[in-house]
This record gives sequence, structure tokens and C-alpha cells, in this order.
Amino acid sequence: MSMQLWIGARIATMAEGGAPYGFIDDGALVVEAGRIAWVGPRAELPAHYASGAQVHDVQGALITPGLIDCHTHLVWGGDRAREFELRLQGASYEDIAKAGGGIVSTVKATRAADEASLLAQAQRRLDALLAEGVTTIEIKSGYGLSEEAEAKCLRVARTLGQRNRLDVRTTFLGAHALPPEFAGRADDYIAEVVRMLPRLHEQGLVDAVDAFCERIGFSVDQTRRVFETARALGLPVKLHAEQLSDSAGTQLAASFDALSADHLEWLSEEGVRAMAKAGTVAVLLPGAYYFIRETRLPPVALLREHGVPMAVSTDCNPGTSPCTSLLLMLNMACTLFRLTPEEALAGVTRHAARALGLPDRGVLAAGLRADFALWDVEHPAQLAYAFGARPCRGAFVQGQAR
Amino acid sequence: MSMQLWIGARIATMAEGGAPYGFIDDGALVVEAGRIAWVGPRAELPAHYASGAQVHDVQGALITPGLIDCHTHLVWGGDRAREFELRLQGASYEDIAKAGGGIVSTVKATRAADEASLLAQAQRRLDALLAEGVTTIEIKSGYGLSEEAEAKCLRVARTLGQRNRLDVRTTFLGAHALPPEFAGRADDYIAEVVRMLPRLHEQGLVDAVDAFCERIGFSVDQTRRVFETARALGLPVKLHAEQLSDSAGTQLAASFDALSADHLEWLSEEGVRAMAKAGTVAVLLPGAYYFIRETRLPPVALLREHGVPMAVSTDCNPGTSPCTSLLLMLNMACTLFRLTPEEALAGVTRHAARALGLPDRGVLAAGLRADFALWDVEHPAQLAYAFGARPCRGAFVQGQAR
Ligand SMILES: [Zn+2]
Ligand SMILES: [Zn+2]
Repeated sequence: MSMQLWIGARIATMAEGGAPYGFIDDGALVVEAGRIAWVGPRAELPAHYASGAQVHDVQGALITPGLIDCHTHLVWGGDRAREFELRLQGASYEDIAKAGGGIVSTVKATRAADEASLLAQAQRRLDALLAEGVTTIEIKSGYGLSEEAEAKCLRVARTLGQRNRLDVRTTFLGAHALPPEFAGRADDYIAEVVRMLPRLHEQGLVDAVDAFCERIGFSVDQTRRVFETARALGLPVKLHAEQLSDSAGTQLAASFDALSADHLEWLSEEGVRAMAKAGTVAVLLPGAYYFIRETRLPPVALLREHGVPMAVSTDCNPGTSPCTSLLLMLNMACTLFRLTPEEALAGVTRHAARALGLPDRGVLAAGLRADFALWDVEHPAQLAYAFGARPCRGAFVQGQAR
Repeated sequence: MSMQLWIGARIATMAEGGAPYGFIDDGALVVEAGRIAWVGPRAELPAHYASGAQVHDVQGALITPGLIDCHTHLVWGGDRAREFELRLQGASYEDIAKAGGGIVSTVKATRAADEASLLAQAQRRLDALLAEGVTTIEIKSGYGLSEEAEAKCLRVARTLGQRNRLDVRTTFLGAHALPPEFAGRADDYIAEVVRMLPRLHEQGLVDAVDAFCERIGFSVDQTRRVFETARALGLPVKLHAEQLSDSAGTQLAASFDALSADHLEWLSEEGVRAMAKAGTVAVLLPGAYYFIRETRLPPVALLREHGVPMAVSTDCNPGTSPCTSLLLMLNMACTLFRLTPEEALAGVTRHAARALGLPDRGVLAAGLRADFALWDVEHPAQLAYAFGARPCRGAFVQGQAR
């Protein structure tokens, strides 16, 4: 593969410490063998790059790092639109449970679906994300809740990565909900999760381990058992934490050097301190906050104060965030959570990479992966300001066009 | 043009009085000379349609009426992303005014821009709406605020209609804001608006007349003067009413048989009654409610109770709703305003058509325009349930593919 030179570009490198957004007004980007060889102001481009490369003039487009959606549940069966409709027609939660709604309905449909149909459904969701310049995505299991069904969903996630030009990171979320056959036996189910994990890992299906630590999910003790198994396997952990109440799951996650703690509406200052100390990223999920009409905001000011990096993600899932627009999450992170556009964009690039433990991307800098997106906007703030816009002109993964 | 037969479709006709959504599980749609010749269950399709037509099997796609965005300010110059960013960085309104922000900045940039650049900017916004099956759009002036600049924006709106396969309805919104050169002389500016209107109408640029009736806009008396001029010209009126306070503008609008009153967060029961009596449509704008973080909801229960039809629109504009997704507005109408998915979909089809005074569309029924959209969903509720999805497979205007 020959050397590629991109010019005529505004570039938001998202590198820290320099101009806001790492912004370069008249930039040049050199790509070689899937990596960034050089990036900077065009006027400073070393001569040997100018002469030896194939030149692409993007005519004023903005170049940013490829977007990273670091928290999704993209693979599921069935559909919950009917439940959404029933709720808006005034049905009670009991009515909906009777009509077969709730997460149990997704588990049932996911177990019943074959890999091909799960793949087709997930591909449609992924297509929407790809159209917005997403080049890395995390996909969790957690609607199978049996070894066989969890493996099926994780295989679908891997297949999505092979079929599309993007990098998929899989997360095992067996401790997402209690499957019906374990009703009243949460500890037994956790023992089952702990048995599944090494076997799924052996099949190469698991890049990280997650749990839902909440009154309506699993306790801190149960979460600890899952995390201990992950640690024994050398797998990094992350946690759904403090979304609906303060269970202090974040402190547990931090004690396991978690990559991230996610949601965090009820996070305490003690939790913030623990994250800062452990270097754990705060993943903010404004789509779920919006969709289930939460009223308590994550402690953004405290996170800033303690220097905890904030990522932003879709949380794409059928129950609380049926969302497939990461750009919309930029707007919601600003509008609802009062992040600045620069913080929001860092949240889907630099900090999202860190939330996945991937130091080779999320910033445009020499030596890193040449994952980048081209945008029809003049300034990166416009990506967060508009909502429902379609500014993405294309995306490149390891230097290759999608 | 030959007869076209669409089969293999689920159809949401959105006709009133029958099944929810006017839903037909295995439907057929016959199009001839740009109109719908027949629509109904495939089993009941008359034989002469089956034999004489070119057949299109949509293989399970959903067909709905083409979407109608009945309230937009699509044409403007400049960009307000920087102002959005400043506000999120903690700047006061004074700071922003000093930095040249606010509606005045849009007026300045719109006046300075030539038609070609306004057209190019608006086309990008329109492209996003077209990609979601929009087949009719209303576009308001209101950032020119001089005869010349208002005419320029309305011409751009007309050109958009000629260049794209969709129907554009123009609305003169001279009484949108006070231009800087009329500071402190609102009555003088209204006199100027009243002078402009007949001249713009003579040029074929005006389909309807709107005003912004609000403490920070124009008074009921000033609005009345604009409406009287519209009435003398035989032009229908509509009103930006009760968004930030209850000015009783809606009652005035109803007394002029307004097509619609729009926003309505502060609408009183008296206002609701006046609308019901006059047949005025309530246009709900959840994007603006969301973006400027309003907390007072429009009186949806009262509107329902009094049988006032509710439309839903993007309000696409640079200051309070930089939004170009009508599908997202379906979700926000449900999530934020608690409309049902069926009400929301009626709001961008049947009721939106009525808000524009267009009885020839918004429903799939024999004799009406063959404006329809194809969707990759199984049930119309899914259009409102998902957000940030891209389910539109294509759109047809007067029977012709876009
Ligand atoms: Zn989640
Ligand atoms: Zn408006």
C-alpha cells in the first residue's frame, strides 16, 4: 500500500494540550501502512511526504479521528416498539409484563433467533452508526443469559467486525439480568456466569467483562465474583454503575482498575475520587437518560474537577436507548449534560478509546491507527450543535476507505 | 405515465376511523397519473388494476404517506455553533451578544449571503430531511427582515422546490424579530411588514403568513395588523404562539381561522377551545422544547379532549432547533410530550397536511396525491420508537421516485 497524503483539510486531531480540539486550520495528514505517518499544518509538511505520496484534496472538509462508540448492546432479537407504544397508551408495567414486554421478552427473542437473523438485525443498526463515521465499536452480550445464547451473540458481534470495515470489541455481560429460569436464585446464576466466562474466553469471544450493578440488577458482592473471574483470566472489566441509585459499584470497579464505569447519574464524590485514582473513564449515556426520562444528572462538574475523563456513547439497546446516532449523543451530552462540544467530541474519540483500553486510536497523531472521518462542516463544534444532520462524507479504517 | 401497482407491502394509510394507523397487513397501492387510484388489502384488489399495471413487490416494506414537515425556517445564512459552544463554556447572554451572537447575527449573515450560498446551505439541510421520506415541506422567511432580503430567502425556498422532487410551501414571517435598524420602533417595523407583504405576494413568493407573537416578539395588536393584511390578500395565516408565555395570541389566530398555532407550551384552555372551534391545528415542536430546555409541556391532554389535531415538526432553525430529522421529532413527541406513536405519525402526515391547508395529501386514499415513503420496518410504531435510525428505503412524489 502506497503512502497517502490528505490536504485541503481542517483537522481536529483531538490531541490534548494544544489548541482546542487539536485544531489545525490548513492541515495535512500522511498515512502509510494503515498508520498515521505525519499530521500537522500543511506549511510544515516535510518535503519527502509531499513528493512520495498519492495526494487527496478534501476541499475544506473537516477531518477528525474516526468515532468510537464505546458502550452498545447492538445484538438482540425481537422488537420492543409495541411495548413503547403500550406505555404511551397508558399501560402499567404489569400490563406490559403480561403482554410479554420488558427485558425478558428480548431474552426470549434473542434465544429463539438464529445467528443469521441476529446478524441481519444488528447490521441495520450498525449501518446507521457507520454512516456517521464510527470506526470502532464495543458490543456487549447480555440478552442470551445462557452459555449457548451468549456465545451466539458474541459470535455475531465478531462477524460484524469481519464483515464491515470497523473494529469490534466484544464485552461479556452475562451479569446483565436474571434469566427467568433462575428467578429467585441470583447467586446461582452468578455461579453460572462465572462458569461460562472462561469457556467463552477460550473461544476468543471476550475482550472485556461487564456487569449491571443495581438494585434491579446484581449486588456489589455478586459483581465482585464476576470481576474476580475476569481478573484471573487477565480480562479488563467495566461496569453499569449508579444509574438508578448509588450502590457504590463504581468504587468496586475502580478497585479492579476498571476501564470504565458507565451511566453514573447517582455517582458520589467518593466514587469520583476512586475513579480518578484508578484512571477509570466515566462513560456518559445521555440517550438512556433522555429515553427513560431520568431527572438526576451525572456529576459532570465533579468529574471535571477530579480530572476523570468522560466518554459519551449511544448505549444502543432495545429497552432504554434504541438509539443508533452517536452524533445525536454529542448534542444530547451538550444539551442535557452541559458538556462543551469539545468535551463531547473527546468523549467519542480520545476518551472513548481509553474506555476501551485502546491507546492506538482516538487521536490523530503519528504512529497511531489511521482511523479517521471526513465531515462537511467548517468547525468541529458544528458536529455537536446540529441534531439529525448527516454531515459525514466518509470514513477510513487503517487508512482504507469504507 | 403507466399505471403502477405496489404489492408485498404493509401499508399505514393513516386514514381516520378504521384500524390504528389505517394499517393494512398485506396491502396493495395503485398509482396512476401521480394520484392514488386504489389502496386496500391485496385480496380485494380489483382485477383490472392487477392486469394493467407495472408491478413493484416491496417485499415486506412498510408504506406510509410521504412525511410532511409543516414548520421550518430552513433558509438562513451564517452559523450559530460558536454561540452554542460559548453558552456551554459558561458565557452569559451579554457575552454572546458582544461576540455577535443571537438572532441578529443570523439576520446579518442572511442579508450578506447571496442566493447561491443560501441555496447550498439550505440544500444540505433539506438533503437530511429528504433522506427520511419528507415529500412536502413548509419554509418560512424571517431572517431577512427587509423586503429585499425576505424576497431573497423566499426565492431560495421556491428554488429548493424546483430543484428537488418535493413540494415546498412558503410562509412569509416578516414579523419574526425586530431588525436592528428598527430598534425601539416595533410599530414602524410592523408598518413596513404590512407594506412588504403585498409586494412579495405579487411576486408569487407567499403561500401563507406567520408571526412571532411573544413578549420578546410582537404584540397581539401588531400581529393583528399583519393578519389583516394577509386576510385582505386572501392568504391563510398561522402563528408562533404561547411558547414562552401566554399572550393569548392563539385566540387571535383562531379568530382569523388560522391554519395552525405553533409551539403552545403556555396555551390556556380558552386558547384550546378557540382552536377547536376554528379548526386550527396545534403544531408541536419538541426539538425546540428539547434544545432550549423548556420545562413546561404543551397541554396535550386538553388538545386531545377538545379534538384539536396535533401536528409535529422540526422547527428547523439556527437558534432554538438546529434539527433536520423529522423521525427524531416523532421520538421526541412521544418521549417528551407523551404522544402515542400513532398520534406522532399522524402529526407528520395527516395533521401536518391540514396545518398547511393541503387536503390532497397526508393520507393514502384514492384520489389523493401519490406521495409516499417506503420503510424497512415491520410496524409503524417502530418509526417513533427508534431514534437516530435510518429506516427510509425511498420516497415517491406524485408517483415518481426521487
Ligand atoms: Zn448499557
Ligand atoms: Zn418556528
